[in-house]
Amino acid sequence: MGSVDPEFTSPICEFKPLDPEEFRKQAHQMVDFIADYYKNIEEYPVLSQVQPGYLRTHQPEAPPYHPESLETILEDVREDIIPGMTHWLSPKFFAFFPATVSSAAFLGEMLCTSFNAVGFNWLASPAATELEMVVMDWMANMLNLPKTFMFSGTGGGVLQGTTSEAILCTLIAARERALEIIGIHNIGKLVVYGSDQTHSTYAKACKLAGIFPCNIRAIPTTKDTNFTLSPVLLRKVIEADVAAGLVPLYLCATLGTTSTTAVDPLAQLASVTNDHGVWLHVDAAYGGSACICPEFRHYLDGIERADSLSLSPHKWLLSYLDCCCLWVKNPALLVKALSTNPEYLRNKQSESDSVVDFKDWQVGTGRRFKALRLWLVLRSYGVANLQSHIRSDIRMATMFERFLKANPRFEIVVPRLFSLVCFRLKPVNGCDPSYTDLLNRKLLDRVNSTGQIYMTHTIAGGVYMLRFAVGATLTEDRHVIAAWKLIKESADALLKGNYA
Amino acid sequence: MGSVDPEFTSPICEFKPLDPEEFRKQAHQMVDFIADYYKNIEEYPVLSQVQPGYLRTHQPEAPPYHPESLETILEDVREDIIPGMTHWLSPKFFAFFPATVSSAAFLGEMLCTSFNAVGFNWLASPAATELEMVVMDWMANMLNLPKTFMFSGTGGGVLQGTTSEAILCTLIAARERALEIIGIHNIGKLVVYGSDQTHSTYAKACKLAGIFPCNIRAIPTTKDTNFTLSPVLLRKVIEADVAAGLVPLYLCATLGTTSTTAVDPLAQLASVTNDHGVWLHVDAAYGGSACICPEFRHYLDGIERADSLSLSPHKWLLSYLDCCCLWVKNPALLVKALSTNPEYLRNKQSESDSVVDFKDWQVGTGRRFKALRLWLVLRSYGVANLQSHIRSDIRMATMFERFLKANPRFEIVVPRLFSLVCFRLKPVNGCDPSYTDLLNRKLLDRVNSTGQIYMTHTIAGGVYMLRFAVGATLTEDRHVIAAWKLIKESADALLKGNYA
Repeated sequence: MGSVDPEFTSPICEFKPLDPEEFRKQAHQMVDFIADYYKNIEEYPVLSQVQPGYLRTHQPEAPPYHPESLETILEDVREDIIPGMTHWLSPKFFAFFPATVSSAAFLGEMLCTSFNAVGFNWLASPAATELEMVVMDWMANMLNLPKTFMFSGTGGGVLQGTTSEAILCTLIAARERALEIIGIHNIGKLVVYGSDQTHSTYAKACKLAGIFPCNIRAIPTTKDTNFTLSPVLLRKVIEADVAAGLVPLYLCATLGTTSTTAVDPLAQLASVTNDHGVWLHVDAAYGGSACICPEFRHYLDGIERADSLSLSPHKWLLSYLDCCCLWVKNPALLVKALSTNPEYLRNKQSESDSVVDFKDWQVGTGRRFKALRLWLVLRSYGVANLQSHIRSDIRMATMFERFLKANPRFEIVVPRLFSLVCFRLKPVNGCDPSYTDLLNRKLLDRVNSTGQIYMTHTIAGGVYMLRFAVGATLTEDRHVIAAWKLIKESADALLKGNYA
Repeated sequence: MGSVDPEFTSPICEFKPLDPEEFRKQAHQMVDFIADYYKNIEEYPVLSQVQPGYLRTHQPEAPPYHPESLETILEDVREDIIPGMTHWLSPKFFAFFPATVSSAAFLGEMLCTSFNAVGFNWLASPAATELEMVVMDWMANMLNLPKTFMFSGTGGGVLQGTTSEAILCTLIAARERALEIIGIHNIGKLVVYGSDQTHSTYAKACKLAGIFPCNIRAIPTTKDTNFTLSPVLLRKVIEADVAAGLVPLYLCATLGTTSTTAVDPLAQLASVTNDHGVWLHVDAAYGGSACICPEFRHYLDGIERADSLSLSPHKWLLSYLDCCCLWVKNPALLVKALSTNPEYLRNKQSESDSVVDFKDWQVGTGRRFKALRLWLVLRSYGVANLQSHIRSDIRMATMFERFLKANPRFEIVVPRLFSLVCFRLKPVNGCDPSYTDLLNRKLLDRVNSTGQIYMTHTIAGGVYMLRFAVGATLTEDRHVIAAWKLIKESADALLKGNYA
């Protein structure tokens, strides 16, 4: 060993940011803090009642120079942060889609964090890559996907953050395949398709990918067909584009749209896309999870003819944000479009082609040991409990639906498929439709301002409607019943005099 | 209240995935598991010694139907997962750049996970948005950034996952600004610039954004200038592009390149980009963190003339993956390029323009309460400790550098700036350069195969060199000393007979 200068061997700094015993003590403290938060979560207003600037304008300009204690910080979480939260995990949260969670997923996330493995390629964390392959095949198995989407078959899957990334990556794979044939100078000819109900992130992803905005088709849907994308209309639009010298590229179909959970008819759409060599992606972010139950699996019929499928367990499979499964039929296309090969990441295993390097399946390079969370969920609960969780949410939504049906003031606007109920106060005879919208807006404001529940709204087919999404992890029948009572009484108060 | 069917009021399912007391019990168990892992981490081989398929080929095809106990799962973590880990947090990890962590960041991550707030807009989680604004200004303050990058000034910042996303978002903002002037059909005229040392993710982001591959310039660097990007060369290349009728768009300069931590001369580069209306982004993923110490702040000189800056605290500021700060001078350009406005997310606050909706600053829609982690780090440690942490890593790298300098067999290939030392076995007199490369490759293999330390390599200017990156959170002087001993002895064994 070389000569060691004593100046260097005596540490001059006693700062130890990861002392295992200090870690243990503080993490235990935090566990209790969080468990208490969950225990008391019902007591907080679900929709935060603070005003813009409530926190920001009261903070110092700079971080502290000296350390502060965990106790002080937790006190500030109680005083400053929690009142500014919209409590997504509250059992009274019925807005957007629920973001569901579980103890198992929390433990998986703790493990993932603790390892801090940066699994860009196999060698950088073999377990991270291999477990992700296992979990993606397990998920595919639960959904009864064809072997063409599995590693044990000819395809494969990868965990993305959100649907946006899943769409962006597959869109780029499709784009590169097309540009190889028509040349990059023809990028302006590529056309992408969706419906007017496709998630807003789709158009954004297309724009990011350099698709010309004039070539992003949002095909109109109607209430008659429950806001699903019409294969007949799609074919017409594609044919018109071909006739105009354009190149149809990619269709994003949806299994459970954000506004009303419409399910696009995959099999029929696949007939159209397959005829025209269009990449078919299925965004099943929310609705896909239901397909782990045999009675809902039929919504995925036709998936064998799609090119890719994404589904976000952070929505309905208890796994905390963010966690989006993406399966592709032809991983080579993804890798071709997204691979990088800098010298400093080269290694024998990657070059032997015997392993998967997930950096080539995603936007960025670094990635966490994401599979642990889903692995913990699948093993801790088993398929049986996950199915019963889906069924329980749907049962509660059905209960809410029956309350509505039994009340003459309300109507269900779109037939319920999963655990979202879209409804409104019925139009008052002889009144302008805008009056109905106004009443429903008022009802929503009134209900949300109580802090007792949080619902959101949408507009589809020109109709303003309220969305009641059941399924926050802690929601029980009593919360749905109380929510209905609040909605009904608010409507009574609002309409006093209108209905005699 | 409406009539409640008793069928609906008695729950039929007893599955409770988030029972607070069960959560408490299991999370405490996991804390102890993790604390023990940290305590014993030195005992594991730092680079996993498993073979491809070690895990995947031994797993069942489908997830279990019935639940399994946490004890069983943790046993599998011990038996199957940990042996397949490359332990990034091991004090013997000197590969790539360290991914640093801390108890405070772990606690922040636990809190973030526990709330599971989906803060796409202000209303969906006011505290999440406001705290992120506070933390981004605090970070800017620590770096002594000009007010033009702060919310308290005229700019602002946002937390991205990784540098890849930070680059993609700003590139899209720059692209949209340019296309508005020249028209989207001229997308093929846009040219982007970097050096041959710029991170590989940059070219990938450019490709994603539809920049023509022929328009991605990787300007050569040389050893004479320590692999920094030459402003003179940049100007020449830009002028040639302009003369050819092309439109210079974006430069990604680097403060601390991945191969050798080269620092591009920001001020001089800014003179060139400002002359040509080119968006200047500074990727300070690793090196930027050092600039919280006054003695290193000069590396950021000229930043006031850049358009955006990214820095990843998950590299050197103790915050676990993934956490990348992005500051922009003109947030309106980002929002213009990335905003969406679907009906179901509309709300009064967003429409009043009194709030920031971070979904319009990033690729996707959903986002976690990311600021908590950095907030916990900054408050728990204070600027003082963070500075001393940076200095301590650099001190240890300096120690390693001195060991090398005192040994005639080794040479330092590139002057050390931060905590990375790039070195090699010196060329043997009269031998072919490829022989030197071979010896160094052999040395790396030999050292890594012991499992005692993990180093990686790079090639710059045609020279194969070893990278010794000091700074894993648990690394102490004794680990650096032991690493040097191992490297030296391995070299002795390898060269026995070559040097007499």
